[in-house]
Amino acid sequence: MHLIIDTDTAGDDVVSLLLALHTPWVSIVGITINCGNVAFDYQVANALKTIEVAGKAGQVPVYPGARNPLLRPWVNAAYVHGEDGMGEAWYPPVSQTPESEHAVAFLLEASRRYAGDLVIVAQAPLTNLALAVRQDPEFAHRVSHLWVMGGSANAVGNIEPLSEYNFYVDPEAAAIVFQAHFNMTMVGWDVCLESSVLNDADLAEIERLDTPLSRFFLQTQRKTREFNRTQGILGTTHPDSLTMAMALDPTILTKSAPYFVTIETQGLHTRGTSVVDRLGDLGHEPNARVSLQANGTRFKRILMDMLATGSTPIAPPSGGIR
Amino acid sequence: MHLIIDTDTAGDDVVSLLLALHTPWVSIVGITINCGNVAFDYQVANALKTIEVAGKAGQVPVYPGARNPLLRPWVNAAYVHGEDGMGEAWYPPVSQTPESEHAVAFLLEASRRYAGDLVIVAQAPLTNLALAVRQDPEFAHRVSHLWVMGGSANAVGNIEPLSEYNFYVDPEAAAIVFQAHFNMTMVGWDVCLESSVLNDADLAEIERLDTPLSRFFLQTQRKTREFNRTQGILGTTHPDSLTMAMALDPTILTKSAPYFVTIETQGLHTRGTSVVDRLGDLGHEPNARVSLQANGTRFKRILMDMLATGSTPIAPPSGGIR
Amino acid sequence: MHLIIDTDTAGDDVVSLLLALHTPWVSIVGITINCGNVAFDYQVANALKTIEVAGKAGQVPVYPGARNPLLRPWVNAAYVHGEDGMGEAWYPPVSQTPESEHAVAFLLEASRRYAGDLVIVAQAPLTNLALAVRQDPEFAHRVSHLWVMGGSANAVGNIEPLSEYNFYVDPEAAAIVFQAHFNMTMVGWDVCLESSVLNDADLAEIERLDTPLSRFFLQTQRKTREFNRTQGILGTTHPDSLTMAMALDPTILTKSAPYFVTIETQGLHTRGTSVVDRLGDLGHEPNARVSLQANGTRFKRILMDMLATGSTPIAPPSGGIR
Amino acid sequence: MHLIIDTDTAGDDVVSLLLALHTPWVSIVGITINCGNVAFDYQVANALKTIEVAGKAGQVPVYPGARNPLLRPWVNAAYVHGEDGMGEAWYPPVSQTPESEHAVAFLLEASRRYAGDLVIVAQAPLTNLALAVRQDPEFAHRVSHLWVMGGSANAVGNIEPLSEYNFYVDPEAAAIVFQAHFNMTMVGWDVCLESSVLNDADLAEIERLDTPLSRFFLQTQRKTREFNRTQGILGTTHPDSLTMAMALDPTILTKSAPYFVTIETQGLHTRGTSVVDRLGDLGHEPNARVSLQANGTRFKRILMDMLATGSTPIAPPSGGIR
Ligand SMILES: [Ca+2]
Ligand SMILES: [Ca+2]
Ligand SMILES: [Ca+2]
Ligand SMILES: [Ca+2]
Repeated sequence: MHLIIDTDTAGDDVVSLLLALHTPWVSIVGITINCGNVAFDYQVANALKTIEVAGKAGQVPVYPGARNPLLRPWVNAAYVHGEDGMGEAWYPPVSQTPESEHAVAFLLEASRRYAGDLVIVAQAPLTNLALAVRQDPEFAHRVSHLWVMGGSANAVGNIEPLSEYNFYVDPEAAAIVFQAHFNMTMVGWDVCLESSVLNDADLAEIERLDTPLSRFFLQTQRKTREFNRTQGILGTTHPDSLTMAMALDPTILTKSAPYFVTIETQGLHTRGTSVVDRLGDLGHEPNARVSLQANGTRFKRILMDMLATGSTPIAPPSGGIR
Repeated sequence: MHLIIDTDTAGDDVVSLLLALHTPWVSIVGITINCGNVAFDYQVANALKTIEVAGKAGQVPVYPGARNPLLRPWVNAAYVHGEDGMGEAWYPPVSQTPESEHAVAFLLEASRRYAGDLVIVAQAPLTNLALAVRQDPEFAHRVSHLWVMGGSANAVGNIEPLSEYNFYVDPEAAAIVFQAHFNMTMVGWDVCLESSVLNDADLAEIERLDTPLSRFFLQTQRKTREFNRTQGILGTTHPDSLTMAMALDPTILTKSAPYFVTIETQGLHTRGTSVVDRLGDLGHEPNARVSLQANGTRFKRILMDMLATGSTPIAPPSGGIR
Repeated sequence: MHLIIDTDTAGDDVVSLLLALHTPWVSIVGITINCGNVAFDYQVANALKTIEVAGKAGQVPVYPGARNPLLRPWVNAAYVHGEDGMGEAWYPPVSQTPESEHAVAFLLEASRRYAGDLVIVAQAPLTNLALAVRQDPEFAHRVSHLWVMGGSANAVGNIEPLSEYNFYVDPEAAAIVFQAHFNMTMVGWDVCLESSVLNDADLAEIERLDTPLSRFFLQTQRKTREFNRTQGILGTTHPDSLTMAMALDPTILTKSAPYFVTIETQGLHTRGTSVVDRLGDLGHEPNARVSLQANGTRFKRILMDMLATGSTPIAPPSGGIR
Repeated sequence: MHLIIDTDTAGDDVVSLLLALHTPWVSIVGITINCGNVAFDYQVANALKTIEVAGKAGQVPVYPGARNPLLRPWVNAAYVHGEDGMGEAWYPPVSQTPESEHAVAFLLEASRRYAGDLVIVAQAPLTNLALAVRQDPEFAHRVSHLWVMGGSANAVGNIEPLSEYNFYVDPEAAAIVFQAHFNMTMVGWDVCLESSVLNDADLAEIERLDTPLSRFFLQTQRKTREFNRTQGILGTTHPDSLTMAMALDPTILTKSAPYFVTIETQGLHTRGTSVVDRLGDLGHEPNARVSLQANGTRFKRILMDMLATGSTPIAPPSGGIR
């Protein structure tokens, strides 16, 4: 599987990268960085650091992309993940450096090179993908499948009452991506909240592992865990990792349905809200598969195994990815 | 209890009126009509007809109010309730006629007469109440409790994906009411969908009652039942009646919480969506009690008893209504 | 002529009242107060004071109306007119007190009493009129002519680049009024800026008059004159007075045309902007006569004569007002 | 002067290209095509045809760009320019073909090659430029000067009352460009309407020229002239040409001022309206030089000379372009 990960590397983005990097049959052709969680250059450094921790320094190129949302001022989430996005570990720079090619140019070029055999996991605001779509409408059709962490099947938000962070940060970009006719799956915050939380018992188990990966995990997730407690969530949240796990092992997505989804760009209190037309009120053709339920138990098992052994227990797809 | 019912009388509005009219200790000081479900004059006629069916012709005055939403063109729901709003029974006019005083003038006047001892159940778009608020900001403080059927605690809509009909029809009015500092409870579509549906077995039981009230019920709910089937809801829906039942017997509201609620007036796909700030993201003081769960079994029992016996089994409040 | 003046009495509103009060054949049936320029109670007091200065204490009733815009928080203009709206003269209260009836109830009642023979000059945000319209759609048809000071024929603003203050404060109310099928004339800020400015020479002439009225004029316009200088306008501005002068002497309106006008309620930078469809792009029937040019010389003459003699030189209409 | 022209080639876009192509000291490094006036492929063909007519076939590359606005469905202007954008001349294809490189990639690359010595004249919706800005924020700083035909200094529209076509088609793109800190001049529809109309006498003079260029001019402007008559404009309008003429001969811009300009993206009736803050109400630093007056006589002279002689009478800048 040829995979591109579009990420605002901080907090759970790191874990998601680890999952992909420790699945041997996955070929990560590139990691693209989008403005989001923390200051842009930290995000780039965090992706490079994570590649090094996974023992793949220099083997996976990192392409810096959009430093700002299309239209809106950038809204960060450093209050969630710590200022450096790594639980304030303040890791020193690694030796690998980012590519000079822009993420959007890379996305377009890679989509031609691997046309029909390219999976993208998007776990950040969607600026890079929107720019690629607008520069080449055929881009969407050359991508085999796009997995998007963002929105919610039922308007459960995490930055405003009905709005999830990734879509909130760049609602216009999200709207463009949902209009682009991708073969895509939206993994919303609602499903992630239900099936991707590691609770105190899980985290205690990870502490007992005491491997280099488990220690890296605990360090980088430290601030998120503290923040979650203030929100009434006891544990760490792993929306990006759950999305990645689904992309690698689609059986984790246990329930979904094709719906028409539109992204609110004009609301006063609903900026970036994903409007999922579950009853068909709007009369449009579905444009996305929407996740409704996940196998959280299997997700946790995969994550734990990876942290314990340095390898996810996911078998390569026999017939390939839809 | 002094009660005013603000209604767009059609479908379940009729049942809600029946519940109040058949609870002897309730003094209905007036019924006010707001544009909504069906053509305005049908709504007035339906309220008058229902009063007659309840054997109270001439005893409960009906005040026609706003014939249009504040700002938007009227959007009806005749496709749900039948063109006449009574399951296309086409009842002939009754002898009681509507009052000449406008609903808004009546609301203001009644709020002075019964200041501190007046409950309002609003089961229609909120134009009348918004006009009363804007004409007299003290109006809100003279109402003991306002029960509003509308919106949703979690953005489950019935006319657009995230929008409930009453707030969708006049979002500006709903926004005004939620800013007005009423002592109020919002009963959303989500709770109504969970706890107010009479299924085929329930409806068969009602058929077996074969009383004048049960026959009137079945006739007036006929079209709604047909429409619901097209939406995957097998039975009749009773949002207004559930709200009324809560107002008469607050124990039916089994779970609720005070939240800040704002109504979207600017969205492209979220017109009238109720934004309920369950996590406190917006940092405002609560302005409404929001229903989260209802005792549907007791609701159905009350409704059945009323249809069977002509009287609801609800005891008068000992200490009064909050 | 039966006249109602709807006003946020401060600055030029005072002068406009003086013009009407000093035109003997005008019967002012009431003055209604709308939230606007300065704190609501100052506005009421200013109207009462102006009536007294005109020697009509107790003869013209003043009806307090909407204390807030329909939907938006109130935005004042005390920085223009001084905190008291009278150039910070801090006049003591007069003996006449405001009526207890609400402005909206009065407007509705007066429109019935003088149906077809009632002119309204609206020189404030349009909340009161919008409330009257929504409470009784026939209200608009009972008013002979509505003169509105607000908006602009060509999007020249005075509070935001394209937005005039009165419509900016309550855009939803303005939108309602323009939908209500009044026989109406909009007098925009553009025309007022062109034809209602008293320059330094004019003001010197007024100083030389040294009458009680001229002294009252200079006192109440003092702060506005100071503010205008900061905006590059050398003199005092009289939008409300120009509108009143047109209502009393329609020959002052030298050029106008019927256009479709709509008020922007959803813009981010165009709140309350009057969209005047001068080329017919929108394909709607005209809903207002829009002022394009005024006889500023005659306007000034009328104003000066009134200040000098205590009477405007305007003859009563022979055939009545359109 | 190194020049890039971003165009939706149809009607006056053609004339603007002719002006640049017939100014010998101008080096047109490329023509980029943006969705706008007519079907995209016609626009490409029209640019190629115009190059051929100017005798430069194969010497000026044409780069197809954005086929859709960023967020909105495309709105064409074929009713103005004829379906083919060339007055329905239906010219056969020429031999030169468009480049395979995308306009945005070309813009970015050219901005590096000619950093600090590159003028762009944008005479179409601004999608290409917005995409370039978002892909590389430094792009704006490498462009010496950007001339934009679009908007209006005083909200005079040509597609909606307050909205000019280019900004209306892609308001989000226009908003991005005005946020990008270009050294830029906006040439609005108001100035173009005042100073770029060729009246019947002018057009008769062009007919008398009877050169290949004058015949091409008359053919391609035929439909626009017919359309203008329906709008009360007697003649042909040349907004793009006037902008180009200013770029080539800045003395044609006789009055301008630096203002803060923002583009409305959220309005219901003000889509794409340019909000030019002439009084400084919004308190932001200027972000564009705004044209206020042009030397229409000189503009016409240049145009006529070019049509007559095949060369504009514009001298190269001595000190270069600001
Ligand atoms: Ca992320
Ligand atoms: Ca109802
Ligand atoms: Ca005023
Ligand atoms: Ca053009």
